[in-house]
Amino acid sequence: MAQHLRQVENALDRLLSPHAPPGSAWAAPADLNDAMRYAVLDGGKRLRPLLVLAAFEAVHGAPASDADAAPMRAACAVELIHAYSLVHDDMPCMDNDVLRRGKPTVHVQFGQAGALLAGDALQTLAFEVLTPLDARVDPAVQARLCAILARASGRVGMAGGQAIDLASVGQTLSEDSLRHMHQLKTGALLQASVMMGAACGTASAMALQAMEAFGQAIGLAFQVVDDVLDVTADSATLGKTAGKDADNDKPTYVALMGLERSRAYAATLAEQAHAALQGSGLADTAALAALVNRVIHRVH
Amino acid sequence: MAQHLRQVENALDRLLSPHAPPGSAWAAPADLNDAMRYAVLDGGKRLRPLLVLAAFEAVHGAPASDADAAPMRAACAVELIHAYSLVHDDMPCMDNDVLRRGKPTVHVQFGQAGALLAGDALQTLAFEVLTPLDARVDPAVQARLCAILARASGRVGMAGGQAIDLASVGQTLSEDSLRHMHQLKTGALLQASVMMGAACGTASAMALQAMEAFGQAIGLAFQVVDDVLDVTADSATLGKTAGKDADNDKPTYVALMGLERSRAYAATLAEQAHAALQGSGLADTAALAALVNRVIHRVH
Repeated sequence: MAQHLRQVENALDRLLSPHAPPGSAWAAPADLNDAMRYAVLDGGKRLRPLLVLAAFEAVHGAPASDADAAPMRAACAVELIHAYSLVHDDMPCMDNDVLRRGKPTVHVQFGQAGALLAGDALQTLAFEVLTPLDARVDPAVQARLCAILARASGRVGMAGGQAIDLASVGQTLSEDSLRHMHQLKTGALLQASVMMGAACGTASAMALQAMEAFGQAIGLAFQVVDDVLDVTADSATLGKTAGKDADNDKPTYVALMGLERSRAYAATLAEQAHAALQGSGLADTAALAALVNRVIHRVH
Repeated sequence: MAQHLRQVENALDRLLSPHAPPGSAWAAPADLNDAMRYAVLDGGKRLRPLLVLAAFEAVHGAPASDADAAPMRAACAVELIHAYSLVHDDMPCMDNDVLRRGKPTVHVQFGQAGALLAGDALQTLAFEVLTPLDARVDPAVQARLCAILARASGRVGMAGGQAIDLASVGQTLSEDSLRHMHQLKTGALLQASVMMGAACGTASAMALQAMEAFGQAIGLAFQVVDDVLDVTADSATLGKTAGKDADNDKPTYVALMGLERSRAYAATLAEQAHAALQGSGLADTAALAALVNRVIHRVH
């Protein structure tokens, strides 16, 4: 996992290099590139990229270390989408947050217009990364990865979940509605990470089904733990403002079922994720299992 | 052209239907979908989609009317990117504009958070449209279309141009710098429209080269005319606030070379576009030629 983390950091750093990207006559404007780098580098747990790489290795039994091959591209693309969503969510018109990954948020550092544009360009870059101009990635894989990522991050995925979140301030949601919101807002991209790892090659129907169940369980578990941490951790440990959900009167699992039942629910979801791996018929799911434990036992 | 316009309007309307999209268990949240529809439908000259369809028909000699085939998908995708850019550019932290296509802008109608999310989801939807889950579009074409669109709209394309624009307020730019800004901000997506039309099938090197030259000329011509109209037209005719560039102290062709030389430059660029078509060896470029005239003689 440490090796994957290093490889992801290197790949992201290269993608956001200040020089002209391959095939372009121009480099990105320096202000914009600086804001994009600030939003992506030096921080982040990289959970989504790690899920992509671990799922690829579990399903295809091959190492995912080549920075130009599909798995590392998919890993970077999901992280770029995640980073763009944080930049926009932190803006004053959304959650109006000033602290992220222990640093001032992008709009504090680069202004609102700078943050808006950096987020926009990070989203675009995700699809650029998935579609290299050389022939080193099978076009069918490129198309499949774009298809999964776009659906998980758009109107019936992450952005849709964010819209429900906005409309839910001050509301009491049923458990079904809360789960629906989180499946879209956070779950869809986490599940997509796993599915994109599998989609970097030809996967069996059984493996795909296992990855789908695994992705769904770990996606929801992540959000339940997030709600717990918002109540139990302090801002210094989280690297972002703690207690924000209650302050903003947002519906959460803790608000719905209390702290203890939320913790128990996260543990149940973790068991479901492990069970999906055990039933998958795949030989080496140790890295995916380790990521479940990381999600459940994380402190930030 | 009237037929293409009708087909594009229908295709966009279907894409933004309030029902669950194909392959999804859920529909987009109603608020979000309403804001996306408002941003895209009932307005717009649809210049970019018309360029996609005309370029496809010129290069491939086949009609582009099937709503599920690559050309109409490419046409919708560029329009979605264009629409997202307008929604975000109009926000208070950017150009702070309240009038667009003769209607209140999206942030006025749906709030800033609503506009931010709608723009984000429109960008994502462009890549979703290009990557249908059924096998009706060749995956190699899907990948190529995503590659062209992402590069034209990102950090070394439209978003990059917007960043230069932001940084140029109050500056006097050289003609080279002004052209560079506009090639990114407006030109890249207009050129991409033409190239995407060509990329929906197998094009000869000569046709691609002609489309590249054509796209570059019409892209720049569009912007020069835009600068002229900002000075000469009124807000009611434009459907957006006139005189904005001067008010915001933005560098323009009119500021750089005056009104008459700007008009003459637009005419020169139109001749270059026509020359590219004549030298292309393609049989039927009448629709593309008509679009040049529409760009040059437009009043809004």
